[in-house]
Amino acid sequence: MNSDMLSRITRYYRILNRLRALGLEKVFAHNLADGSGVSATIVRKDFSLLEIYGQKRGGYEITELLEHLGKILGKSDEPENVIIVGCGRIGKALMHYNGFEVDGIRIVAGFDSDPLIYNDSNHPVPVYPISKIEEVVSAHGVKVALITVPESASADVYHRLVEIGISGILNFSPITLKPIKLPDGSLPVIRNMNIALELEQIFYQLQFPPKE
Amino acid sequence: MNSDMLSRITRYYRILNRLRALGLEKVFAHNLADGSGVSATIVRKDFSLLEIYGQKRGGYEITELLEHLGKILGKSDEPENVIIVGCGRIGKALMHYNGFEVDGIRIVAGFDSDPLIYNDSNHPVPVYPISKIEEVVSAHGVKVALITVPESASADVYHRLVEIGISGILNFSPITLKPIKLPDGSLPVIRNMNIALELEQIFYQLQFPPKE
Repeated sequence: MNSDMLSRITRYYRILNRLRALGLEKVFAHNLADGSGVSATIVRKDFSLLEIYGQKRGGYEITELLEHLGKILGKSDEPENVIIVGCGRIGKALMHYNGFEVDGIRIVAGFDSDPLIYNDSNHPVPVYPISKIEEVVSAHGVKVALITVPESASADVYHRLVEIGISGILNFSPITLKPIKLPDGSLPVIRNMNIALELEQIFYQLQFPPKE
Repeated sequence: MNSDMLSRITRYYRILNRLRALGLEKVFAHNLADGSGVSATIVRKDFSLLEIYGQKRGGYEITELLEHLGKILGKSDEPENVIIVGCGRIGKALMHYNGFEVDGIRIVAGFDSDPLIYNDSNHPVPVYPISKIEEVVSAHGVKVALITVPESASADVYHRLVEIGISGILNFSPITLKPIKLPDGSLPVIRNMNIALELEQIFYQLQFPPKE
């Protein structure tokens, strides 16, 4: 599955979860299209590729669709555990964000090098000194980390995480992290959320609109 | 220029700015490659497409390169003004983030519907009630907004922003915003930063690694 389609399927899954939470039982391609910013034709094309077919009178059962897409996405009933490395403002904001749960993501711990931060008991999840990462990661079977340390610390933290076998990284620092090998020889999955870079691309597109 | 290349050029530009700030005068394709997570071959290919040529003995003058890439990216010496709508934890974290300046981005104001937030004078930029958006936007010639309101408010805020002519939006809410027409009939540029979606895609890629 290419990454555009993966992104769409993930969106459908998220919307379906929300619709189910609202008590809906049936959904139409148009609903999913509206909720995910694509056309109904694309939704239908995706479903046809995945061999998902609607009912005679139109529409799909939300529960069935969730089950089907969940299998494709490799979802389990267990939430996915993640850690946050760097508990400054961005890290703290993420620790307090309560929208992860509906998507099956659980932040199990935060880490920081500053004793004022890790000795503060006023966090929604436990926060430890960086030296405890390996212990916590292995206790919770964590595979994915969010890096929210300052720019100057991100390369160090990244190497440390890879050494202890963290294989998925969501990087908020403006430094682009290059894949380095994990202990098992494979490469980590890295996604960068670079806010300034996104903004610059918006400014560029406003200044030089693509020709239609 | 396709979006991958735009993203790379923007990265090169950012790294060059940082290298210049460190006192460097010359840069090599390998430096830019290391800093932007691509190969030196790609850097050279990009530069050759842009008709940028190095010096006889190798390397590029950072100042010249910055000027050249700056023109391509439509950079001016003036910072680009943006506003933040929604001053909860994420919005506040962004207001305090001091990494935007080096990239020529200036947050001119924040907006929130909660009087406890907009009456609090303890923010790094002025924060106003939502009702003041139009006034502030027109006073500062703002074209781009970051939406950091809760999920339930994001569609409303988005429509409001488009009505007053905000043409670029960086959306942090998990709701996918669909392009709706601006007062001048054109479509806004929207980029979504959906943290949960990124995490889900990492989990997917870890579970189903792409075949090489």
